[in-house]
Amino acid sequence: MRNVICARCVKCGREYEAVPNLTDCACGGILDIVYDYDYIRSVLSKEKLAARRKLSMWRYRELLPVEERSPDPELRVGWSPLYEAPRLAERLGLNRLWIKDDGLNPTASLKDRASAMVVVKAREAGAEVIACSSTGNAASSLAGNAAAAGLKTYIFVPARAPKGKVAQLMSFGATVISVRGSYEDTFELSKAAIERWGWYNRNAAINPYLSEGKKTVGLEILEQLNWQVPDYVAISVGDGCTIAGLWKGLKDLYAIGFIDRLPKLISAQAAGCCPINRAVETGEPWRPMEENTLADSIAVGVPRNADKAIAAIRESGGLTVELTDAEIMDAQKLLGESCGVFGEPAGVTGTAGIKKLREQGRLPADSTVVSVVTGNGLKDVANAIAARGEPLSCPSDMERLLEAFAARGICP
Amino acid sequence: MRNVICARCVKCGREYEAVPNLTDCACGGILDIVYDYDYIRSVLSKEKLAARRKLSMWRYRELLPVEERSPDPELRVGWSPLYEAPRLAERLGLNRLWIKDDGLNPTASLKDRASAMVVVKAREAGAEVIACSSTGNAASSLAGNAAAAGLKTYIFVPARAPKGKVAQLMSFGATVISVRGSYEDTFELSKAAIERWGWYNRNAAINPYLSEGKKTVGLEILEQLNWQVPDYVAISVGDGCTIAGLWKGLKDLYAIGFIDRLPKLISAQAAGCCPINRAVETGEPWRPMEENTLADSIAVGVPRNADKAIAAIRESGGLTVELTDAEIMDAQKLLGESCGVFGEPAGVTGTAGIKKLREQGRLPADSTVVSVVTGNGLKDVANAIAARGEPLSCPSDMERLLEAFAARGICP
Repeated sequence: MRNVICARCVKCGREYEAVPNLTDCACGGILDIVYDYDYIRSVLSKEKLAARRKLSMWRYRELLPVEERSPDPELRVGWSPLYEAPRLAERLGLNRLWIKDDGLNPTASLKDRASAMVVVKAREAGAEVIACSSTGNAASSLAGNAAAAGLKTYIFVPARAPKGKVAQLMSFGATVISVRGSYEDTFELSKAAIERWGWYNRNAAINPYLSEGKKTVGLEILEQLNWQVPDYVAISVGDGCTIAGLWKGLKDLYAIGFIDRLPKLISAQAAGCCPINRAVETGEPWRPMEENTLADSIAVGVPRNADKAIAAIRESGGLTVELTDAEIMDAQKLLGESCGVFGEPAGVTGTAGIKKLREQGRLPADSTVVSVVTGNGLKDVANAIAARGEPLSCPSDMERLLEAFAARGICP
Repeated sequence: MRNVICARCVKCGREYEAVPNLTDCACGGILDIVYDYDYIRSVLSKEKLAARRKLSMWRYRELLPVEERSPDPELRVGWSPLYEAPRLAERLGLNRLWIKDDGLNPTASLKDRASAMVVVKAREAGAEVIACSSTGNAASSLAGNAAAAGLKTYIFVPARAPKGKVAQLMSFGATVISVRGSYEDTFELSKAAIERWGWYNRNAAINPYLSEGKKTVGLEILEQLNWQVPDYVAISVGDGCTIAGLWKGLKDLYAIGFIDRLPKLISAQAAGCCPINRAVETGEPWRPMEENTLADSIAVGVPRNADKAIAAIRESGGLTVELTDAEIMDAQKLLGESCGVFGEPAGVTGTAGIKKLREQGRLPADSTVVSVVTGNGLKDVANAIAARGEPLSCPSDMERLLEAFAARGICP
């Protein structure tokens, strides 16, 4: 990889050769991939990019830590649509607003970006099996992307994992191990198994390539905006890996001179589980929290990428905001009815955060803002059902329909 | 519309001016849009297409019945990925096989192509409200695409409609009317309401523009194959509108000289609900059937586009095949584990059909085949759960994991 210099621990600064099966630092810190931006500047230009027909995350290969000879993986990950949302901008009292719908990735979440990257790195490592412990989007994206590549997966889930998610994993042919115990028990068994059989490791905060895959969401937003930098980019935060990846992508573009300033990040967490935001707000080290939110994809009480995330929010001069479950579910409807975008609860939390920041007067009206929707609403229909209530009901009779409309104040 | 000559009834041949709010013929037959292919040939070339960056169904505007001045609608519909599936081809004993994953459309089904078209035509008609009766993908795609366009929707569903689907509609801000009665009662009330308030009509087999939107799936397949014509295109069939649209797209390309032969269609229906296939097989007129299949999106006992569909299958010299629910759910797993594509039951029925035709010896081994996946598996998680069974279960203990692996014959 001519574009990569090394991997460096974000905690102690120790440097490692960027081999394909990197894990974390001996000190326990997470590694960060360090690029040779001079080299990248010499091989990549905006014009070169603009001429590329390949509309996936792999159009940015000069900025990605993969061998030049490695083929693109099978599924079409990335280049999700960025919609301008003028009606929603008006409702929220904002200058301009765009929605990046990453729920339209192959397995319906932003996590596909990390899993696609992992598939390439596993192949470079000569691995035929990838493993992780997760109940959610990381697991389904790994199972789907690996299946398409002909790689086997072992996925460890706690026994409480929702049956629907397990069924999706099994449909992708993953070997799913349901661990009778807590999430921590599950993680430990996966760790022991990964060591024993030498499987490629897709656990977040172990594998530093995950956030390099995720950073492509930031690269795309800026290219889709024709390199006009928005004032803010809002995104939901759980483990911290995604917002850290987003920030890495934005900084890459700044480093190679494609943009001349950086947006501020808006870190949106659930009020019932916000250890990263709390650390940013108090200036103290992060502390574990309970996981009291229905937004399961960001219900992470012990975020393993907290260090990278907190640094990103601080560096950007960003904003933090915490949302109740009711505010999150309201944002799902707001986004659906104004933009036709259906996001899962964690997926719409960034949009909920923008609304709340506007109400609190913390986000100026003249701002330009991008909101990243990180996952598809079809991932969690149960909460949508609970939030939406009952539709109007009537027999097949026009008079009764007129009455029902009148009773609800509907004037067709 | 310089590219459109008129709309012509497929039953009696009567011709109509192609106004935006076309419905069906006075004789009750469905209309078909008739194009001026000489004109289209003079304005569209393969080279012109290849140069277009717009990767959505709207890259084919010369072949679509929309006014030149009409803007593209808001959501990014179409240009879904076409994956070559060499491992699945090998398993099925086929020369080459491709999977067109239309479950990656904005509301996760091929129906978005029709709804996006309807949004454009409704605007051309000056309508601000669109209505339909449906419980499924037609409804959710209409609600989503219309919401993005700032248009209102009234959607009539029978009271038995699954709550999840209703919640999705309500998240898009649709006014949902749950009709206490049969599907027929629901349709009748929607019809009366559409007439009373003059809403734009998105009911299939009333609005002839729907299949013109759907035909873009055929246009894309051929362009993505670089105009190399496959021997067969397999797709699931319910109402008949989709396979008729697919055929229309293929014939369009033949008419303008972009391809020099036509593929054969494979019409895959559920064994428990196959009125269109039965008509093709017996040569008799189609007759209503009960709707005995879990593949809800193709459980259509009274197909309103049967005439167009039967003509398409016959014209193409195509094959028909009927699948049991078990065969459908097996295909879901086959597609998931070999391609990383998760389709809803109706979505994978085409692939199930290919497998069965190979087993029956009706599909030659040297064939090249495209299978269209019409909807995302996340639309119907309940059936996936029921089909996949239980994962391996064990405590967080390596010895017990080894025992569990051995018991299932898993050798990591």
